[in-house]
Amino acid sequence: MKKEKYVILSKISNPKDLKKLSVIELKELANEIREVLINKISITGGHFGSNLGVIELTIALHYVFSSPKDKIIYDVAHQTYTHKILTSRKNLFLDESKYKLSSGFTNYLENENDIFTLGHTSTSIALALGLAKSRDLNNETFNVISLIGDGSLSGGIAFEAFSNASEIKSNFIIIINDNEMSIAENHGSIYSIIEKLRNDKQYRDSESNIFTQLGYKYDYLENGNNIEELVSFLTKYKDINSPIVLHIHTKKGYGYELSYLDKETYHYRNPFDIKTGKNLSFQARTFEVINREYFKNKLEENSNICLICAGTPKNFNFTKEERNTYKSRFIDVGISEDLALLYGVGLSKGNTKPIVSISSSFIQRAYDQIAHEIGLNKPNMIVLVDFCGVGKTSSTHQGSFDVSMISNIPNITYLSPSSEEEYISMLDYCLTHEGTFFIRLYGGEVLHNNISVNKDNLMKFEYLKEEENIAIIGTSKMYGFALSLHEKIKKEVGNNSVFVTHQLSTLDYDFLDNLIKKHKVLITIEDEYLDGGFGQKIASYLSSKNIKVLNYGIKKTYIDNIDLNDIYYSNRIDVDLIIEDILKLN
Amino acid sequence: MKKEKYVILSKISNPKDLKKLSVIELKELANEIREVLINKISITGGHFGSNLGVIELTIALHYVFSSPKDKIIYDVAHQTYTHKILTSRKNLFLDESKYKLSSGFTNYLENENDIFTLGHTSTSIALALGLAKSRDLNNETFNVISLIGDGSLSGGIAFEAFSNASEIKSNFIIIINDNEMSIAENHGSIYSIIEKLRNDKQYRDSESNIFTQLGYKYDYLENGNNIEELVSFLTKYKDINSPIVLHIHTKKGYGYELSYLDKETYHYRNPFDIKTGKNLSFQARTFEVINREYFKNKLEENSNICLICAGTPKNFNFTKEERNTYKSRFIDVGISEDLALLYGVGLSKGNTKPIVSISSSFIQRAYDQIAHEIGLNKPNMIVLVDFCGVGKTSSTHQGSFDVSMISNIPNITYLSPSSEEEYISMLDYCLTHEGTFFIRLYGGEVLHNNISVNKDNLMKFEYLKEEENIAIIGTSKMYGFALSLHEKIKKEVGNNSVFVTHQLSTLDYDFLDNLIKKHKVLITIEDEYLDGGFGQKIASYLSSKNIKVLNYGIKKTYIDNIDLNDIYYSNRIDVDLIIEDILKLN
Repeated sequence: MKKEKYVILSKISNPKDLKKLSVIELKELANEIREVLINKISITGGHFGSNLGVIELTIALHYVFSSPKDKIIYDVAHQTYTHKILTSRKNLFLDESKYKLSSGFTNYLENENDIFTLGHTSTSIALALGLAKSRDLNNETFNVISLIGDGSLSGGIAFEAFSNASEIKSNFIIIINDNEMSIAENHGSIYSIIEKLRNDKQYRDSESNIFTQLGYKYDYLENGNNIEELVSFLTKYKDINSPIVLHIHTKKGYGYELSYLDKETYHYRNPFDIKTGKNLSFQARTFEVINREYFKNKLEENSNICLICAGTPKNFNFTKEERNTYKSRFIDVGISEDLALLYGVGLSKGNTKPIVSISSSFIQRAYDQIAHEIGLNKPNMIVLVDFCGVGKTSSTHQGSFDVSMISNIPNITYLSPSSEEEYISMLDYCLTHEGTFFIRLYGGEVLHNNISVNKDNLMKFEYLKEEENIAIIGTSKMYGFALSLHEKIKKEVGNNSVFVTHQLSTLDYDFLDNLIKKHKVLITIEDEYLDGGFGQKIASYLSSKNIKVLNYGIKKTYIDNIDLNDIYYSNRIDVDLIIEDILKLN
Repeated sequence: MKKEKYVILSKISNPKDLKKLSVIELKELANEIREVLINKISITGGHFGSNLGVIELTIALHYVFSSPKDKIIYDVAHQTYTHKILTSRKNLFLDESKYKLSSGFTNYLENENDIFTLGHTSTSIALALGLAKSRDLNNETFNVISLIGDGSLSGGIAFEAFSNASEIKSNFIIIINDNEMSIAENHGSIYSIIEKLRNDKQYRDSESNIFTQLGYKYDYLENGNNIEELVSFLTKYKDINSPIVLHIHTKKGYGYELSYLDKETYHYRNPFDIKTGKNLSFQARTFEVINREYFKNKLEENSNICLICAGTPKNFNFTKEERNTYKSRFIDVGISEDLALLYGVGLSKGNTKPIVSISSSFIQRAYDQIAHEIGLNKPNMIVLVDFCGVGKTSSTHQGSFDVSMISNIPNITYLSPSSEEEYISMLDYCLTHEGTFFIRLYGGEVLHNNISVNKDNLMKFEYLKEEENIAIIGTSKMYGFALSLHEKIKKEVGNNSVFVTHQLSTLDYDFLDNLIKKHKVLITIEDEYLDGGFGQKIASYLSSKNIKVLNYGIKKTYIDNIDLNDIYYSNRIDVDLIIEDILKLN
């Protein structure tokens, strides 16, 4: 902790303090904050490029406007480190012992300047619209400002809100933070229009300007990392009485040269060496790493597949160069998960096999495509659901909804590999068989075992250890835990069986009917929400039969910044606690 | 059946037959089909305005293009009656005994000319994009045409697909069927742009044209109900080698004068008298009828509420005039369910209380807003989930996903009234208490009883009949069934209890702990999917205790055109079958 280094920052506790500074001091403050952020992210990891790019803009916003009276809504909120520093939370970024306490997103419970808790994209204009409407109904007066990145403009709800918010006939400020990037490169013709706005003053000032057509005033600032210009630009539109789009050009990763060479990597960085930019964290063998090897081979074999992602090509772990090599069969639709899935349904009807990869937290944005177009049309397609399970530390990016969301839709097989070996055999199976397969991929290091699937066992439950009395199933990455539990029970209680399932959408009724003949207790363990999940299906089927079922999983709640072991323990996913529960049964 | 009346139609079995006709005969065919549709819809009910408006366009499409080689994708597919008539299914519309067999939407299992099974809006361009991409990868040659109504353009996924599909450098035809209407009037500035396209030739032909900016060629046809013009217009662009938008102006309800006076009512009509336009079906006292009475009063009382809907103002049953009277507090965002919910979250943070109403089938399109922004921000808001439960006959509009979708999200209370009285008391409660309340409203006639809620019993289970041995709970409209079951069991087996819950998101553990002391069997009955639902939560909690639980609900599957009683019976929701199951328990 070298607080004394930060001369200006030491004077700032909240946005009011900011207003006492001169523009020269604001610039110095930006430099200080930049150093703080680079330091902090290099140690803990975090969103790098987005945060570095808006340091000046955030300072200018808090200098010109008066938060929390004026409402600033940050889209995705993955660019709010400076906002947090300026709103009473600088110690989370200065004091290394507190680093882990800072959530990467806004959280309304944390601070009155955080209007919403959120971490998903493209929603800020819609939320701002409600705030502005309420203000007008109640005859209040304040500025409503949504700050949205160009990458977020590909999400349809941003467009819906643009179209509707033009009906507001009072203050409504949309700032487009244009850093010419999504997480990776942008996709879609909306970005040709954004580019034209940057480069063509005549177009900007004409009635053709797309935002003018949509009912907005419009202005553009080229130097979005220049505080002086930002302050005078924003001051001009403070308290404006109509909807306006302020298009501000910033540089992603501004002030850290190494990031310019590879903006995609610097979108989110794990711990790294500041001088060299080198990764300091160990690269585990994750499902994403496996995907790259597997699908590169398949593309080389020239099979009739297409890989699709929605703004997160890293799910396949392909480099930019590799994406280019296979570009006719590697489709990035931008941040539009619903489009990614429908694109896949269309491909499938045309007899091309799509493999779509979407993170668990983001596939929520395409529930209707799963329950409607996919369920109804039974396309031959594979959907990889990435980063499933609890373990992510932010309440905004939980991977714990996927089982209740996907496994309860008809006509979908929700596969759930426990290991690399099982996963590879599943991919081989799915590529050579008809059907709609979603595959649940947990985050982190992938386990190993010798489980595999084929057409005869895909929908079956199978014993790993067949004994008697107590039966255990641990799904997905709880496979390992189930084995530990087996050992401990064996030692302390006696014989017990372990079985596995390859999928979470259907029960193997024959297996269960046989199981109850020699077992009195069945234990299910999942690493996602218990409610709506797999264990409850088993409990429902067996609850009229002569066996006791104990379901373990995560209680439905948002989990913020809690150690994984604590989450498990508080949900009684612990060998000793489970044995305690078994012994209490009568 | 007066088949002989239809001289031209009698010659048409499939699109090939159409190609033999002269333009004059095509016109005559349109008249015949119009008569057929008016007759059929007046007897069975159905989408009226949308189907009558595109008779000429559909004939022209099948005349110019060659389906199924050329792929025509109908957005929503609620305008496909003529398409069905022209593709081997005319008897479903001519033979009254077969009327009930025709689904109102395309269904790929029904006919090779129906590319997709669907009934939700704004997705046709995204699906077409996948088809076109697959065609190009496989070096095939055919036209891909999506037909999308102007009302569907408010859905964000349409915009996402527009932006992305411009990357297709080959044949891709988007027909905008512009009838100047959504279900009700259109909302948002996109519609000012569409209007400008209709009225301003200079704008249409300029580079400012929004579709030109998005990367499309563009052309406009004013007389979209003139077959001759349609045929020459479409012929011009057949086999085009680039993406193009064909903007065609049609008249909703064309050819039935009465419908022009009230296009909203004629969007979907229940059975009516052709001469007078009068409704022939009995207007049941539904939750929508109750909503109108209740919320008109609340708006009169000048309470700080806002009503929000997403293109379906009929959920509140307000007339157009009433919506106008209260227009500052009656918000229709167009077909954008996600926007409707976020608008509500924003209003709530501004201290205005939103009441959002969205149909069960359509709220699927806003799952992420429920699981993310709503769950995380705990807004004070009420969301009415309309038309829940099985009973709708189309697989595309099932109301059976809502419980697994909503009740498994943290921080949301999913209320489930059994009757008008309970519903009114819930609304009174929710309007005067903080919290996030979703309310499950079933379709059809609302039951009556004397159940009501207050702050002490809202989250509690309560006995209606407290006896012993067997306990029964029927949620939502299964309340009545639970009572019948109680009577029959009383007669044939003996004493039994009935209890109720007011919500489906949390169990009353104390109640259940007490219940097991004097009951050996618990029966749950729901009218939605069993998987992920309320009964499975009860089974999970009780499966380690000394009671047998029998869960009844609907097996997860898409249900098309099946009688409600048959659905219940096949899921063993039948007093005799349940008693059989009870007697089999040991």
